[in-house]
Amino acid sequence: MQSQAHSPDEAAVRATVADFYAAFEALDLAAMSRVWLRGADDICVHPGWEILEGWPAIRESWRAIFANTGFVRFQPSRLHVQVHGDVARVTGVENILSVSGSHTAHTQVAASKLLLRTEDGWRIALHHGSPIATRHSVQELPEDEPAN
Amino acid sequence: MQSQAHSPDEAAVRATVADFYAAFEALDLAAMSRVWLRGADDICVHPGWEILEGWPAIRESWRAIFANTGFVRFQPSRLHVQVHGDVARVTGVENILSVSGSHTAHTQVAASKLLLRTEDGWRIALHHGSPIATRHSVQELPEDEPAN
Repeated sequence: MQSQAHSPDEAAVRATVADFYAAFEALDLAAMSRVWLRGADDICVHPGWEILEGWPAIRESWRAIFANTGFVRFQPSRLHVQVHGDVARVTGVENILSVSGSHTAHTQVAASKLLLRTEDGWRIALHHGSPIATRHSVQELPEDEPAN
Repeated sequence: MQSQAHSPDEAAVRATVADFYAAFEALDLAAMSRVWLRGADDICVHPGWEILEGWPAIRESWRAIFANTGFVRFQPSRLHVQVHGDVARVTGVENILSVSGSHTAHTQVAASKLLLRTEDGWRIALHHGSPIATRHSVQELPEDEPAN
């Protein structure tokens, strides 16, 4: 997240988005909870998943994802922020490196977010991620060649 | 799209969404164009695609999709509309029946939309569709058994 000459609103929105990815990389459920509105109308679509509605279901999904993720790093690109009053739209590509057991995956996800302005700052009301189809999206380490 | 006791804003948003699906089913590029903002900041993510930015690229994608679609019908479900001032958020599941050559596919797509209020009504500024993974998402007609 490079800091160019963003408006205060856009800078604040980008800060919440940065906190989202920091929480994901840290597999930190408390930190992830802090960037969401945590309301009955929150919406989350993980890549390939059905639509999750409401914070309890969304929180449980993050708990399950974090429990099944060993290592993940995000390199966001093409981040695009628009602020309309108290609503912000954020889109971008998540370039993801993840390691789970002997699997190393490089994947790309198209992500859209909607954030609402609250007294405590901008909070995520919707996150929608979808897999970008690529020819070689998963690399598997050979199991008979342990990495030293 | 059942009409319950929606606010005038929500009813107008739902009308634009209904026009979107009617245009898609009719494979009508002019009608599809009318429901979009058609600005440089429009965003569209088709299921599995990368992010398209700006109306020219989005228009071209619809042209290509319509040219390669024989028959498609949408049954939206779990439609969820929220209006925040001049911004509306719409999420829902698209239950899709499509026929292309000898292939009949039943697929589900999770869709998020952002609409903005304009002098001409609500217009789509973002549409993000992602495939919902299912075990049996594609049925293929046996090629040696022509359907009479």
